[in-house]
Amino acid sequence: MQPIVLVIEDDDAIQGIVEDALREGGFEAAIAKTGEEAVTLLKGRLIAYRALVTDINLLGRFNGWEVARAARDVDPNFPVVYMSGVAAHEWPAQGVYNSIMLHKPFAPAQLTTAVSHLLNGLLAVGSNRA
Amino acid sequence: MQPIVLVIEDDDAIQGIVEDALREGGFEAAIAKTGEEAVTLLKGRLIAYRALVTDINLLGRFNGWEVARAARDVDPNFPVVYMSGVAAHEWPAQGVYNSIMLHKPFAPAQLTTAVSHLLNGLLAVGSNRA
Amino acid sequence: MQPIVLVIEDDDAIQGIVEDALREGGFEAAIAKTGEEAVTLLKGRLIAYRALVTDINLLGRFNGWEVARAARDVDPNFPVVYMSGVAAHEWPAQGVYNSIMLHKPFAPAQLTTAVSHLLNGLLAVGSNRA
Amino acid sequence: MQPIVLVIEDDDAIQGIVEDALREGGFEAAIAKTGEEAVTLLKGRLIAYRALVTDINLLGRFNGWEVARAARDVDPNFPVVYMSGVAAHEWPAQGVYNSIMLHKPFAPAQLTTAVSHLLNGLLAVGSNRA
Amino acid sequence: MQPIVLVIEDDDAIQGIVEDALREGGFEAAIAKTGEEAVTLLKGRLIAYRALVTDINLLGRFNGWEVARAARDVDPNFPVVYMSGVAAHEWPAQGVYNSIMLHKPFAPAQLTTAVSHLLNGLLAVGSNRA
Amino acid sequence: MQPIVLVIEDDDAIQGIVEDALREGGFEAAIAKTGEEAVTLLKGRLIAYRALVTDINLLGRFNGWEVARAARDVDPNFPVVYMSGVAAHEWPAQGVYNSIMLHKPFAPAQLTTAVSHLLNGLLAVGSNRA
Repeated sequence: MQPIVLVIEDDDAIQGIVEDALREGGFEAAIAKTGEEAVTLLKGRLIAYRALVTDINLLGRFNGWEVARAARDVDPNFPVVYMSGVAAHEWPAQGVYNSIMLHKPFAPAQLTTAVSHLLNGLLAVGSNRA
Repeated sequence: MQPIVLVIEDDDAIQGIVEDALREGGFEAAIAKTGEEAVTLLKGRLIAYRALVTDINLLGRFNGWEVARAARDVDPNFPVVYMSGVAAHEWPAQGVYNSIMLHKPFAPAQLTTAVSHLLNGLLAVGSNRA
Repeated sequence: MQPIVLVIEDDDAIQGIVEDALREGGFEAAIAKTGEEAVTLLKGRLIAYRALVTDINLLGRFNGWEVARAARDVDPNFPVVYMSGVAAHEWPAQGVYNSIMLHKPFAPAQLTTAVSHLLNGLLAVGSNRA
Repeated sequence: MQPIVLVIEDDDAIQGIVEDALREGGFEAAIAKTGEEAVTLLKGRLIAYRALVTDINLLGRFNGWEVARAARDVDPNFPVVYMSGVAAHEWPAQGVYNSIMLHKPFAPAQLTTAVSHLLNGLLAVGSNRA
Repeated sequence: MQPIVLVIEDDDAIQGIVEDALREGGFEAAIAKTGEEAVTLLKGRLIAYRALVTDINLLGRFNGWEVARAARDVDPNFPVVYMSGVAAHEWPAQGVYNSIMLHKPFAPAQLTTAVSHLLNGLLAVGSNRA
Repeated sequence: MQPIVLVIEDDDAIQGIVEDALREGGFEAAIAKTGEEAVTLLKGRLIAYRALVTDINLLGRFNGWEVARAARDVDPNFPVVYMSGVAAHEWPAQGVYNSIMLHKPFAPAQLTTAVSHLLNGLLAVGSNRA
């Protein structure tokens, strides 16, 4: 049984690269074409997704920043990896805590390392969860 | 010349504790009573604030999450410390990256350590700033 | 209302230094003279201790390594700071994760910084809490 | 000459996955079937193992927490990765410092990333080694 | 378009291992045979190298420590991975900040994890970049 | 017995601030007026200095970057805090690993937090010390 990673990416070429990288790392990739679809899947909780890998500029009503916040509403520790070229500079203002921003173009190893690092619980936190 | 920290807190008792803690640590505290006032000060850039310390539930139109995003729009590395009791659980979804969430009640040393840690540049980042 | 730190130290001189350092940082120190007493207090949960500061070689049946494990049984994220001279080399084998080892002699600022750092949630974790 | 990783896992299926993952990453896996065997190998120092990857519930007298402590007695910086399903919640109390806990099921990439991260010396330490 | 990593290694066997590891991770490796060549390439800025992977003892006038400093003069955040056997002990005195030292022999996964980790921006920094 | 911190600063005003901050944190400050004097004291090993706090532009032959490297030659883990205004931008190329760069002007709490953080062993390392 492999950890399932939810991927939101409408560019077929990049989607293929992401799927290949995750599969080679031993993850299963589940694809959502829009932010709405991803939010519905995350909130439905029918499948135990373990991480979100998302582009920023998405088809439909939600962008990647908003999907990540919805995922964190469902699970406060949910691992998030953003991928972007043009929107990467917005990450310090829009990205959730303990997420990773991959600037396009990136190597597949950067993606699997980022997802693994988050799943291994290795990013510093900054809240005492009193 | 002391580093100036912008503080948004409308509870006078906590504001006093925060001011005392910062002053004892050698910082100067500048107080804003509302989020609007803070955003105006940050965007005006008349004073070189070095960090933001903000409550979450603020008087007026903006909450602390929104003020922090506005501060990061102005400066992508701007240090942010949130203080809250009831809203602390929203931090994983609403807090900006490389920020620190202090759960009330906290000790003054936690505040000065948090501000110093951010100003010393010691929180891990998660973007390659390519 | 100040965060309460449970301190186990039978050397009166060091106990005084630790109490003074914590009080100056805005913490309240609660003293236990033995490991048994500390474990009883932590398991009783009558007082919401926020951190443990403990010597290693203690009077009575438990040493500091054992008290820390008992504290983590009660709360998996419980902040732990060990203090020792001679037993510090045992820390890599005996210390719990996300704890800090202070080698005696240490400066009071090292103690308040260590406690604050743990309460601020800033040590890296290494578990995905799936 | 490849770095040798000592693996303790009696479930043949998981052992195979771990071996494959390590080999693909360029490590050599040496298998021990019990904790006693592992402790004997580590203390014998005939082979320079570079990391320990261990299940928690082991055949024989020792569990994974105990083997890790024995490994750290031999080498205070010895990299340790634990793997478990049911016993993962004990890690905050039983795991040694600077170790990584992998919750089953995990992807092979998580394992190679964890071992590499520890061998690269990238986990924060918490002792001044004065 | 793959991220390009500049590699300085005159031992053909190790150069081959490094190239294979980077290529499998989805990076492109550009080889320099000497430190002078590497410094010329970095300063020329014709190609946007994303990271430096360098041996310490190099043919010619510059050693790896000096090439890394030259790279950081060009770009203060330039990712650096050193590889060495005999010179690894000089790293605490000679290595630049936010670099990684790989002790030979290392596994290919350690190299791709190290390069990815630096490109993902995950090493702690220690400067407030005021 | 207090931990002794070696301070190199020829500006009397800043030297006074540094001394006061260290003393209030429970450290003892030993002053060197030049880099040569500091290197002689560190290499002589008559006093067990626990950390170095140094300006960059020094009177005499050595600058702060060179003194830090000399300190690390004596002890590979020696904690180093640099202080500078104009030379801070050279830190990524010239600063040793696991050091902290304080940009002038800084608050005294930043200095004691930085020294404490290094003495507490909390900066990530990047070498496997195989």
